[in-house]
Amino acid sequence: MESPLTGRYVAVVGPSDSARDDDLERARAIGRGLAERGAVVLTGGMNGVMQAAAQGASEAGGTAIGLLPGPDRAGAAPENTYTLPTGLGELRNALLVRAADAVVAVGSSWGTLTEIALARRTGVPLVLLDAWDLPADAGVLVAGPGEALDALVGLLRAD
Amino acid sequence: MESPLTGRYVAVVGPSDSARDDDLERARAIGRGLAERGAVVLTGGMNGVMQAAAQGASEAGGTAIGLLPGPDRAGAAPENTYTLPTGLGELRNALLVRAADAVVAVGSSWGTLTEIALARRTGVPLVLLDAWDLPADAGVLVAGPGEALDALVGLLRAD
Amino acid sequence: MESPLTGRYVAVVGPSDSARDDDLERARAIGRGLAERGAVVLTGGMNGVMQAAAQGASEAGGTAIGLLPGPDRAGAAPENTYTLPTGLGELRNALLVRAADAVVAVGSSWGTLTEIALARRTGVPLVLLDAWDLPADAGVLVAGPGEALDALVGLLRAD
Amino acid sequence: MESPLTGRYVAVVGPSDSARDDDLERARAIGRGLAERGAVVLTGGMNGVMQAAAQGASEAGGTAIGLLPGPDRAGAAPENTYTLPTGLGELRNALLVRAADAVVAVGSSWGTLTEIALARRTGVPLVLLDAWDLPADAGVLVAGPGEALDALVGLLRAD
Repeated sequence: MESPLTGRYVAVVGPSDSARDDDLERARAIGRGLAERGAVVLTGGMNGVMQAAAQGASEAGGTAIGLLPGPDRAGAAPENTYTLPTGLGELRNALLVRAADAVVAVGSSWGTLTEIALARRTGVPLVLLDAWDLPADAGVLVAGPGEALDALVGLLRAD
Repeated sequence: MESPLTGRYVAVVGPSDSARDDDLERARAIGRGLAERGAVVLTGGMNGVMQAAAQGASEAGGTAIGLLPGPDRAGAAPENTYTLPTGLGELRNALLVRAADAVVAVGSSWGTLTEIALARRTGVPLVLLDAWDLPADAGVLVAGPGEALDALVGLLRAD
Repeated sequence: MESPLTGRYVAVVGPSDSARDDDLERARAIGRGLAERGAVVLTGGMNGVMQAAAQGASEAGGTAIGLLPGPDRAGAAPENTYTLPTGLGELRNALLVRAADAVVAVGSSWGTLTEIALARRTGVPLVLLDAWDLPADAGVLVAGPGEALDALVGLLRAD
Repeated sequence: MESPLTGRYVAVVGPSDSARDDDLERARAIGRGLAERGAVVLTGGMNGVMQAAAQGASEAGGTAIGLLPGPDRAGAAPENTYTLPTGLGELRNALLVRAADAVVAVGSSWGTLTEIALARRTGVPLVLLDAWDLPADAGVLVAGPGEALDALVGLLRAD
């Protein structure tokens, strides 16, 4: 099924160790939904929300590319289809936002906030799901994975 | 006068075009105070809060180093003592935080928020002055330049 | 067919505009051979040797990932399976080398030499095919695509 | 004395551990000469040629700024006037070239070659002193520190 998401790159960002079960379920559903619509899932490649999104994409037969912070593949989630070590540490968050056509944030952490702020600063469409408590204009605020996917379709159709 | 700030690198971050007069006055006072205490002022090298902080440092006979986003020195504030083009765009915000022993945020913008979040994510001491409306534990919240300098002295003495 | 190259990431680097027909044919054969052995082909994502390697990988049903220098996908070769804009300009050469398990250089240019030198500097196994006129110990010097693939198998088996 | 070098940024690059005594003496003389002409010396901030250039600049009362590869100031040469940790590893070589108005290479190593190749790739004026055995058009080849300084004056006057 052709969709405005087909062939587009969507970064799914969110907490690693501090991710809640809720965040993980939602990230997995979003990863799955993105893959079903033909989007490539980008993540930071590690555990937590990143891993859950990669798992969802992989379950749907899609592609998840992980941009890793370290200089090698240590710690990469096995659910990634491809992994790219950057050796940039937290600067890889900025690469992730740059490489993406849109960003979905699931849950809250300081790392996630860097990605949210960078997306806003550089004009990358942003969907927030239970994300950091930000001003109302921070991005499209949604309540669940289905709404998140609908919001992405709307943002990338208009793009 | 020897101070816990002597020889330390403090990044002053804040809005460029959207900086308010208040932000500029405060950034200038902080830049001056840092230079008087022997600290090196780091900024993003452009206008607004960055320029005001560099101006303050320069008025006090100190040093301001600007890490520019572009591939050359176009748009650099003339008040910088030294400027370094990075060609990294907004990724230079992450460099700025990494190169600093502490960060002071004056005022609010999405670019400023990337620096605040990166400082928190990477454990760099952070002082917030009229900065983004963040959770109470985001950093040391202060009401004016004098308090900001005192807070930095406290953070870097303990460091 | 399982091979020491299966699941490994090999960067194919070489000139863009100044690539000779010979370079292009060889890069394409190497891209094809890598894909046939299950390796992921990494390139700088643009024209010349990068495009030829991606084309070879794609003809063999494999995967070519292009790390682009610009902030968006403009100028990306259509033969890439996936493209990631980095906005890093020539710094993306360093990312390419970092993300790769081995590097093959086909032909000579200053950009290619940065990748060769970075691979040597950081210890990434390197195979040179008609590459820059370097000291004999610069890497494994080979005369054609078949030898290049054999050399990669040897280097990555030992890895 | 006003000079075409006054206020310009010149990167002095060369080997660290493998630097020969000759390289060190020459780097120090170049650092001194640059500082006497009002140029800011940029280096990779560590030992060997980098340290010698910083020492020369500092002896002449000038400024040496070191862009360090690590995430903190560990290993920085004490002769630097200012140091900036980048956490970029070998990618900081590219930053160094980008931030410089001209590059002088003293001696040979793979790291030095990355800087030479990047300077050539990005059009930064380049002077080579006993540097890597490169094609004759690689840069302005000189035989000693005095010639190197003269060559820089010529390149930056024309700039």
